[in-house]
Amino acid sequence: MERLHITMHSDGFDIAIAGELVVRHRRNAPAFFVGRGRPDIAMYRGNFDIADRLDERVALRHAEMDGNGVLLSPEQGTTPLLRLAINEGIIAIEGLDPLLNRFWLRIDAKADEQLWGAGEQMSYFGLRGRRFPLWTSEPGVGRDKSSLLTFHADTTARSGGDYWNTNYPQPTYLSSRRYALHVDTTAYVAFDFRDPAFHEIEVWEVPARIELFAAKSFVDLVGQISLRFGRPPRLPDWAFSGAILGLKEGMRSLERMEAIVSAGARISGLWCEDWVGLRVTSFGKRLFWDWKANEARYPGLRETIAQLEKRGIRFLGYVNPYLAVDGSLYGEAAKAGYLALMLDADEPYVVDFGEFDCGIVDFTNPAAAEWFADRVIGQEMLDFGLSGWMADFGEYLPVDVRLADGTDGMIAHNAWPTIWAEVNARAVASRGKTGQALFFMRAGWTGVSRHCPLLWAGDQSVDFSRHDGIATVICAALSSGLLGNAYHHSDLGGYTSLFGNVRTAELIMRWSELSAFSPVMRSHEGNRPDDNLQLDGDPQVLNHFVRMTEIHARLAPYVASLCDEAVATGLPLQRPLFLHYENDRRVYAIETAYLFGRDLLVAPVIEAGRDSWRVYLPTGEHWVHLWSGTIEAGGQEVEVAAPLGEPPVFYRTSAIMRPLFDEIAAAFSV
Amino acid sequence: MERLHITMHSDGFDIAIAGELVVRHRRNAPAFFVGRGRPDIAMYRGNFDIADRLDERVALRHAEMDGNGVLLSPEQGTTPLLRLAINEGIIAIEGLDPLLNRFWLRIDAKADEQLWGAGEQMSYFGLRGRRFPLWTSEPGVGRDKSSLLTFHADTTARSGGDYWNTNYPQPTYLSSRRYALHVDTTAYVAFDFRDPAFHEIEVWEVPARIELFAAKSFVDLVGQISLRFGRPPRLPDWAFSGAILGLKEGMRSLERMEAIVSAGARISGLWCEDWVGLRVTSFGKRLFWDWKANEARYPGLRETIAQLEKRGIRFLGYVNPYLAVDGSLYGEAAKAGYLALMLDADEPYVVDFGEFDCGIVDFTNPAAAEWFADRVIGQEMLDFGLSGWMADFGEYLPVDVRLADGTDGMIAHNAWPTIWAEVNARAVASRGKTGQALFFMRAGWTGVSRHCPLLWAGDQSVDFSRHDGIATVICAALSSGLLGNAYHHSDLGGYTSLFGNVRTAELIMRWSELSAFSPVMRSHEGNRPDDNLQLDGDPQVLNHFVRMTEIHARLAPYVASLCDEAVATGLPLQRPLFLHYENDRRVYAIETAYLFGRDLLVAPVIEAGRDSWRVYLPTGEHWVHLWSGTIEAGGQEVEVAAPLGEPPVFYRTSAIMRPLFDEIAAAFSV
Repeated sequence: MERLHITMHSDGFDIAIAGELVVRHRRNAPAFFVGRGRPDIAMYRGNFDIADRLDERVALRHAEMDGNGVLLSPEQGTTPLLRLAINEGIIAIEGLDPLLNRFWLRIDAKADEQLWGAGEQMSYFGLRGRRFPLWTSEPGVGRDKSSLLTFHADTTARSGGDYWNTNYPQPTYLSSRRYALHVDTTAYVAFDFRDPAFHEIEVWEVPARIELFAAKSFVDLVGQISLRFGRPPRLPDWAFSGAILGLKEGMRSLERMEAIVSAGARISGLWCEDWVGLRVTSFGKRLFWDWKANEARYPGLRETIAQLEKRGIRFLGYVNPYLAVDGSLYGEAAKAGYLALMLDADEPYVVDFGEFDCGIVDFTNPAAAEWFADRVIGQEMLDFGLSGWMADFGEYLPVDVRLADGTDGMIAHNAWPTIWAEVNARAVASRGKTGQALFFMRAGWTGVSRHCPLLWAGDQSVDFSRHDGIATVICAALSSGLLGNAYHHSDLGGYTSLFGNVRTAELIMRWSELSAFSPVMRSHEGNRPDDNLQLDGDPQVLNHFVRMTEIHARLAPYVASLCDEAVATGLPLQRPLFLHYENDRRVYAIETAYLFGRDLLVAPVIEAGRDSWRVYLPTGEHWVHLWSGTIEAGGQEVEVAAPLGEPPVFYRTSAIMRPLFDEIAAAFSV
Repeated sequence: MERLHITMHSDGFDIAIAGELVVRHRRNAPAFFVGRGRPDIAMYRGNFDIADRLDERVALRHAEMDGNGVLLSPEQGTTPLLRLAINEGIIAIEGLDPLLNRFWLRIDAKADEQLWGAGEQMSYFGLRGRRFPLWTSEPGVGRDKSSLLTFHADTTARSGGDYWNTNYPQPTYLSSRRYALHVDTTAYVAFDFRDPAFHEIEVWEVPARIELFAAKSFVDLVGQISLRFGRPPRLPDWAFSGAILGLKEGMRSLERMEAIVSAGARISGLWCEDWVGLRVTSFGKRLFWDWKANEARYPGLRETIAQLEKRGIRFLGYVNPYLAVDGSLYGEAAKAGYLALMLDADEPYVVDFGEFDCGIVDFTNPAAAEWFADRVIGQEMLDFGLSGWMADFGEYLPVDVRLADGTDGMIAHNAWPTIWAEVNARAVASRGKTGQALFFMRAGWTGVSRHCPLLWAGDQSVDFSRHDGIATVICAALSSGLLGNAYHHSDLGGYTSLFGNVRTAELIMRWSELSAFSPVMRSHEGNRPDDNLQLDGDPQVLNHFVRMTEIHARLAPYVASLCDEAVATGLPLQRPLFLHYENDRRVYAIETAYLFGRDLLVAPVIEAGRDSWRVYLPTGEHWVHLWSGTIEAGGQEVEVAAPLGEPPVFYRTSAIMRPLFDEIAAAFSV
């Protein structure tokens, strides 16, 4: 690990890592500020309006060493407000006035510096030039104030969102200067990358530590980061030996699966989120949030699961951290005192999810977390035979909740996704299934990678829109992959169909292509299955899907090797091009293509109506176009034919697994 | 004038006026803050996005007296940053660090306190509970983020606006505690009235003075304020002896006017904004911004004007502070050095108004102001025979402009409307026409009342919408009227027709009713005359208009008396009910009805599809319903029939001019 170096000057100090100046603090250009504010927070079903009523923001101009570090105060002779201690790669920070609840730090910036990370970002992989509030929430519908979809979402449910909204933010960024910075906090954070001369970090507490990492290469840097935040367990082989089919029509799901299998699709899992049964509301069919198999909807499910498994098809379900008040588990939890309480009454905090209310299991109570892991996930899910599940939500913790360990809601909110991941991981571990059972999450914060085996990109709209469509899952994979999350995937076909926005056949097929060249290929029927085209609703779509599942299954040996690599090095399976081509500056801004491992370059078609696509090939290699076999030199942009069924994919001539790719090319080229 | 009293305490001080505590400054609850910020301003055709990059905000906790006032510093022993001096009703403020460019002051608030003013507010007359940025600008189209109209305006031209956007803001408010506060500045200001315990004033400079006023009654308070900011010249009698007809079809305007007169309408003015000729752009027909009569469009106009005046019909035109680069006046101004320059080049700052560019006359250059007043308005307009004009714009001064007197654009921007008013007033005075020639403005800031004889409410949309329709002109009249602007009116029929929003017959008729009971009744054809119904486009609408012009003309003796009263007392013609019923607390929140003078209560129908209307009658009087003659006791809400042609109007039984109202009632009741 690189160490930080501090250099004192007559009017300030510098902090550098590996020769890169990070903090430049001077009396007339201070880097540290503290203050006080009052948060102004409104939540509506996971969408947050957040504003600060700022009372004070004081520059800490005066710095002096004492035995324990650097003391910072507004002016010479005034009471010090912060103490800094530099240790290895860490700036430890101590707030000296308990009333302080705001902290700002300016990081020295270079004009041509590029930045990435900040969790799982959906709109922008490159972060420079924008401000990113970091607060786990719904990502929004449309996420673009110039779109009518966003307008309708905003005006009906305050749910339009914006470019920075994400289920999984994280206060960590990587710089093209080959260092990374992490703020060790779960408070609200904003990364402001708009200024040419500095990056400004805002934190709604005095954070205990700022951590810095540096390396000679991006690969090493990502490796370090993944060790710090925790590498996930390896994906089980079954997860990428075929597609995971998402159906939710009760026992009809089984019939439909059989038909899809008969059509030739390679299916390794059946995911039925309705395994818990349905609740019918005026909004439509919702799930019944009481986490146990529903005998009425899936008679003899335990048997069915066992039979499927013999055929190599795993069964997956669904769970989230809420309990419907009219379900059986709610009563158990309430009686045991496992539910989060209201601030001003000794009663469970109940959240309205639209015609039904739920309690929040208080995971800060160790007994409650253990109960949920063992009694709910362990007994009702793993022991029942489930091989995996969507571990939904995690972003909705209200800030006015009372928790068992006394944590303030403003601090607990961002911590919740990782705590939720940990509860799931503990359940899996308790049954000895780590690395075998597979749960996938959309919510996250620092450390989610340590517990969650697989991210999913959340609820895209069923379209090609720039900020909420298919394109966003690439950005999501690339950004989260830099922070330790090796495995990422998305809802094949998209999820959110609202205000008349429905799937086209083209969208499903393009998404199948993208998913085939992703770690896990899993389909979703979406929020309104009946209004939207499904994989088995159109012969062309189904045939295309079959083809893509075959290709995906053929890639399994390669994906397995990438999983091994992820365990060993922390490298994600989907990688920005600069990870392996750091001397080719042209790749730094690419956010719609990725390396799938070291050897495959994937540039999915993410626009409608295209039959060709432009792809930049990194320098220093020769690249084979998968479908035509044409070999192109790197260092140029090429335009390739990209009809449906032939997504733009290249492999390196020097790839170790080149025989596998040649074989796939031979088998699937037309 | 009431004097301020300051009381020092061991840990702070209080400032009170007339027994009302205004400022309570304590070490642990400071009222004064200073800081530094960098404005982030984007303008698009008069619509501004304004954000602050705040660097510092420091509480000035420590206060001590010195010979010259109170010195404020962050802590005891640190350098003082502000000096306050209390003198009569003024808190004079001196910033002691030239780098300070932000100032905040917290004013003590009471929970049930109500506030009004802040210039000409279009959405909310009562200000409590909201934040009001004060920056002269376009008010926006729709002004309501939940409306599709606003969405379309925002996405096509960033012009949707919001509730606080107004052509005429002013950093002055009145409190129900019978005091008023004014910030003497032209910098960006925000009044934040959201907190129950304090009002926070933010100013983007250290303002020279905070002025306070107090009185035993609201009437006295408004009188004081009007003296401070300047009372406008009395309206000329011709301005309210009939309607001013807005037509802009070249010589066809004359024909159409004759037909309307023949139908029986009482017309005292013909307003042709196209007197300068047209410019055809892809947007539609615009005016040619070169301020002289256009012989091609109005052949022999000078003659026509003279003939009309003999018949008692005045002719009015149009002017604004820009000069089209392809007009003749631009060359004159450029040659003389009268144009504002670019910051970084010795060239005129040219503004794009949509397919044509204009220069900005630099009124901070006394010679340029004099040239515009004498050469343009004097010679081309007044000497030509115009009796009045719309003095449009004033809100668009860019912040990156270079002015002759060196004023920074951030400070000059808000000052510009009043400077523009002064140029117009000077032109009128130079021809001895003060109180006779009538110009009307939408833009304003502190002091516009001193120069501008008549406000108009700007560019409402042609609808009944809450935030941009007919209702807003009442709010506009009431708020601006409290700050010295005695005379207010609006575009009869509304102005802005965009995205398919067009006038209904009902809207025009309701607006005729409102205008008839306003100081001046002036019609407008709107921005798209051909797409919208006009007064002479429908017999029912025309007959209704004729009836309303007759009523308006009959009211002239009463309006004349109100004008005299305005000159003598500063009271506006349209008054919130609390001005005369301050002991009836129920009237404090009324913002859709007004007293038209002391004796008439007007509650215009401002919703579509209504044939009755609820009106609260203030206590302590008996009220005669104009159309039915029914007499109702005050202190109750009544519902009255309100068919088209009978707007809800009441008069006091004790009115001095009751015979006039009885006569009108007899003549016009059906």
